[in-house]
Amino acid sequence: MSLLASHRSTRVVRLAGESKAGSRIGDLFPHLDSPVVLEKLSDVPLWTDVDVVFFALPAGQSFALVPRYLEQGTVVIDLGPDYRLKDPELYRRVYGLEHGYPEGLAQAVYGLPEWTADSLDKARLVACPGCFPTGALMGILPFLRAGHIRRDMIVVDGKSGITGAGRSLTLETHFPEISEGVLAYKVLDHRHIPEMEQCLDGGKVTFVPHLMPFNRGILSTIYMVLEHPCSQEEIDRTIDESYRESPFVRRVSSPPNTMGVRGTNNVHLYAKVRENRLVVITAIDNLVRGAAGQAIQAMNRIFGFGEQEGLTRGALFP
Amino acid sequence: MSLLASHRSTRVVRLAGESKAGSRIGDLFPHLDSPVVLEKLSDVPLWTDVDVVFFALPAGQSFALVPRYLEQGTVVIDLGPDYRLKDPELYRRVYGLEHGYPEGLAQAVYGLPEWTADSLDKARLVACPGCFPTGALMGILPFLRAGHIRRDMIVVDGKSGITGAGRSLTLETHFPEISEGVLAYKVLDHRHIPEMEQCLDGGKVTFVPHLMPFNRGILSTIYMVLEHPCSQEEIDRTIDESYRESPFVRRVSSPPNTMGVRGTNNVHLYAKVRENRLVVITAIDNLVRGAAGQAIQAMNRIFGFGEQEGLTRGALFP
Amino acid sequence: MSLLASHRSTRVVRLAGESKAGSRIGDLFPHLDSPVVLEKLSDVPLWTDVDVVFFALPAGQSFALVPRYLEQGTVVIDLGPDYRLKDPELYRRVYGLEHGYPEGLAQAVYGLPEWTADSLDKARLVACPGCFPTGALMGILPFLRAGHIRRDMIVVDGKSGITGAGRSLTLETHFPEISEGVLAYKVLDHRHIPEMEQCLDGGKVTFVPHLMPFNRGILSTIYMVLEHPCSQEEIDRTIDESYRESPFVRRVSSPPNTMGVRGTNNVHLYAKVRENRLVVITAIDNLVRGAAGQAIQAMNRIFGFGEQEGLTRGALFP
Amino acid sequence: MSLLASHRSTRVVRLAGESKAGSRIGDLFPHLDSPVVLEKLSDVPLWTDVDVVFFALPAGQSFALVPRYLEQGTVVIDLGPDYRLKDPELYRRVYGLEHGYPEGLAQAVYGLPEWTADSLDKARLVACPGCFPTGALMGILPFLRAGHIRRDMIVVDGKSGITGAGRSLTLETHFPEISEGVLAYKVLDHRHIPEMEQCLDGGKVTFVPHLMPFNRGILSTIYMVLEHPCSQEEIDRTIDESYRESPFVRRVSSPPNTMGVRGTNNVHLYAKVRENRLVVITAIDNLVRGAAGQAIQAMNRIFGFGEQEGLTRGALFP
Repeated sequence: MSLLASHRSTRVVRLAGESKAGSRIGDLFPHLDSPVVLEKLSDVPLWTDVDVVFFALPAGQSFALVPRYLEQGTVVIDLGPDYRLKDPELYRRVYGLEHGYPEGLAQAVYGLPEWTADSLDKARLVACPGCFPTGALMGILPFLRAGHIRRDMIVVDGKSGITGAGRSLTLETHFPEISEGVLAYKVLDHRHIPEMEQCLDGGKVTFVPHLMPFNRGILSTIYMVLEHPCSQEEIDRTIDESYRESPFVRRVSSPPNTMGVRGTNNVHLYAKVRENRLVVITAIDNLVRGAAGQAIQAMNRIFGFGEQEGLTRGALFP
Repeated sequence: MSLLASHRSTRVVRLAGESKAGSRIGDLFPHLDSPVVLEKLSDVPLWTDVDVVFFALPAGQSFALVPRYLEQGTVVIDLGPDYRLKDPELYRRVYGLEHGYPEGLAQAVYGLPEWTADSLDKARLVACPGCFPTGALMGILPFLRAGHIRRDMIVVDGKSGITGAGRSLTLETHFPEISEGVLAYKVLDHRHIPEMEQCLDGGKVTFVPHLMPFNRGILSTIYMVLEHPCSQEEIDRTIDESYRESPFVRRVSSPPNTMGVRGTNNVHLYAKVRENRLVVITAIDNLVRGAAGQAIQAMNRIFGFGEQEGLTRGALFP
Repeated sequence: MSLLASHRSTRVVRLAGESKAGSRIGDLFPHLDSPVVLEKLSDVPLWTDVDVVFFALPAGQSFALVPRYLEQGTVVIDLGPDYRLKDPELYRRVYGLEHGYPEGLAQAVYGLPEWTADSLDKARLVACPGCFPTGALMGILPFLRAGHIRRDMIVVDGKSGITGAGRSLTLETHFPEISEGVLAYKVLDHRHIPEMEQCLDGGKVTFVPHLMPFNRGILSTIYMVLEHPCSQEEIDRTIDESYRESPFVRRVSSPPNTMGVRGTNNVHLYAKVRENRLVVITAIDNLVRGAAGQAIQAMNRIFGFGEQEGLTRGALFP
Repeated sequence: MSLLASHRSTRVVRLAGESKAGSRIGDLFPHLDSPVVLEKLSDVPLWTDVDVVFFALPAGQSFALVPRYLEQGTVVIDLGPDYRLKDPELYRRVYGLEHGYPEGLAQAVYGLPEWTADSLDKARLVACPGCFPTGALMGILPFLRAGHIRRDMIVVDGKSGITGAGRSLTLETHFPEISEGVLAYKVLDHRHIPEMEQCLDGGKVTFVPHLMPFNRGILSTIYMVLEHPCSQEEIDRTIDESYRESPFVRRVSSPPNTMGVRGTNNVHLYAKVRENRLVVITAIDNLVRGAAGQAIQAMNRIFGFGEQEGLTRGALFP
């Protein structure tokens, strides 16, 4: 919402939620001075005065509303997990429930703009990637598509700030439990693995996410094995060519710190090759590029706004 | 020194340093109330009234003194890098200087007590492992020695608190540059790689260290590929058997947080297998198990003190 | 419990709680490796095999048990608020409930050992001070008792680490809400104000507590107005004389950092005078000196153990 | 510079520095992608193609250049300390050097826009307040000017994030020395005291600054004594009337967290009265309202831009 407020071609007209319905946004988040009151999601009728609706609901809760918005011609941009996987059977295995709108799966475009731009521009339903897949895929795809790496030996070590765990209160996010430590979770068992693999043309990912004692940002350290010898120059060139047209992606010459992208939709990318091993490190802000920012980037493409509109704010450092 | 103070069979008699020589320890470190004054290292004659000397010097600075202490029968425990590598040629490549006491290389015992106990008990010169090798080897060796894993596909993602970078002032350790981010460094190029590989019987390690915004602790996430199918039970049993006799190692059933070992010489170990992939995560306190604590553990074995003497202090949490 | 484990004259025999009853301590706190199982407080009969019982219950929950332990001759050391205030009417106003054991109020000794040692040595019921009163009183009392300061112009600005708020999950202690900020709370309205003032012989305190983004420690910045001119030497001498016999209190010559006392029962004290203004700064670890450590110090005095027994562990820095 | 980049009526044309001269801004600060190269301050001739020059130099280093810019009609906005004090003799005592341009002292307008707007609008030389005086004065002046408080009993407890100490490397800002603690410094002896008192019409301030383990923000807890009884409503009304016309100041109904103003030029203000004591708490971002942002606010007034131009960016939370 903070990002849309600075977008010149949009106006936030309505917001709905469940547990905090009835509250003023400015009371829920003291840093915002907004008078908008959260409507109760289960009470709201179909909004007809909007061009685009953003959803950010837990798995399974979008099935009733999404088809109705699509029917009336509203563009739907979903930040939740409901339309990311193509296969309803896989969805059932991963999320433990039947998919209630499988037609949506077929129709949805995966909203990773640098890699799905052509279909994204014509999309009516966008499935925004999860934060970890965003960081991982931005680093893997240039080399996978170029045929440089083995598909069966990809390791992704994900390092996320605490906001990756949401605003719910848990022991893991209680300050004294994490501020002086670091923690892996869902080892080899995270729901983002099938999402990543779906985009990797048969590739397999070994993925372990970690919770880090800072707020925003995901650093993904990606370990790959080369199919054939590549020089550092070829590696760098592969990155540069993959992202030549993206205003958000920047190859950096020393390992990136997540603080360099904080508050932005940018992706900082670093690569290092040694013998047949390739390490790629990507830094994103999980709350912008890994969520709301990438969603706005998708909206900008669909509606023909400038791709950077509302997303030009520089990083806040420190 | 804080650890030795609580050891019942030792007394710290002297300390020497270079840049802070002449200062009272209690002034350099306000949390210690010690009147001991740091002698100037380059001025001190050979101390003859000590049974054991601990060295913690930068590469190349121990060559003059170590042989003289060994000659007079004093046990030398070196926390620096000078005696960790067996091959003087490799030492030259890694540290960029000629080894000045190659006889020491042959004689030194690598001070990873759980894996080198027999020779350690009779050692006169101990080369204490670096902090990253400690965390990595404790997780890899059980499976490598059991023949469960491929030697050529080991990935170690190291996550160290800021104290891993020492007390020197650098931009990387300036609070505002790191407190809200995370950073890789020396990608595929860290001096601890040859040290790890030397202990892996021909194994190769792909290693990237990271600096994390907390003080103490190293979490090592180790990605391995199984040679043959292993059940989770076999994996857990391999750990339990490897460390049956160690009072410091504990297998944990959920991924460890470095806060659980803070201030201790303990190693927390977690393993998870899935198809042919094995992930092992180890947590240590880099300032204790990765340095002074492990050195004291070595001393305890050499002098026949109880292995835990001076090392029983529980973790400080939070 | 971690402290008692290192105490040579005690053994923890039983622990009881309510919400986590039935759990192993080692599961609740991964840094402890204890097999003791928490008994259900409401189920436990009167324990008769103990010499001393520590209570740490919310206001009002100790009234049933404390008198019964006192009757059977067990020493009771209460870390909760039930016996800190002398006046039952004041207790009612502050805690909103009737005091259920007013005889206890009369009998209880306030457990600030440096200031109540004589009566403490003979106590059967100890009311351990709150963490903020401990930090404040240790800084105010030397000057108040010496008659150096005005009683009506004492300002205490309290700065507590997050553990001061307990292990309950709240939005205030959710990592992203506090890790990059600082927050006052209960402005001029904290329950520790009457407790402080009760010890100040009619003095009045203006007190504001703050929550800081670190774990352990309270820094109390105390602003006082001198009754008559005092030199810096007189001020320092007042401190030294007040605490000459305490092994835990140390006057420091530059402003203390809470990290210098972390994990200890120590109090670091700094004073600076300028014209008629006196600023005193005290640093304590709220979880040790502000709670369990001070309770053990009281026990040591009552039972004639050495005052430092179980409390000699040095500060963990960093 | 990051702020000016988003200002619609300005263009950054040149930057000069000393120690890092010759570097690209984008290399010094990876979060900025700017190609501007830092010119060497001592080499640059008088720039004639600029309407306004911002200075941010250590004490004493502006005397050569400022008069020359003023002579050629360029507006000078100084973020350094050289023109904040009115009295050259006081300047000499506080900064230990002779003032080299006393005419500037007379001419300079103190750039606290909410309190000096009239003269600021016509200023040619602006002395931007220090960060601590900004936070303190915004909280004190409403009550001092209204005659509600005693001038001789004002206590300001300042709590600053680490960036308040600058980008120079010091032991105090080394991550492990501060991340888990809090520290007072320059007790009763900070250079900002005379600056504050100069604005208080004879009032005296007892001030202690503290360094806190977070990056941006100053929380000022201000303790005052009322001259006459005031209700909470009168207190709140005094604030509201003082800042009725400022788009940046907001009275909040619960104690503010510095995170609520992070990245903004806003001031959050909270007041609580009890008997004859008044506590006011202000929160600012020291790097924006306490420095560059307030400077731009001054420029906006002088040049007749909208007061908020370039300063509308919302807080980054978390």
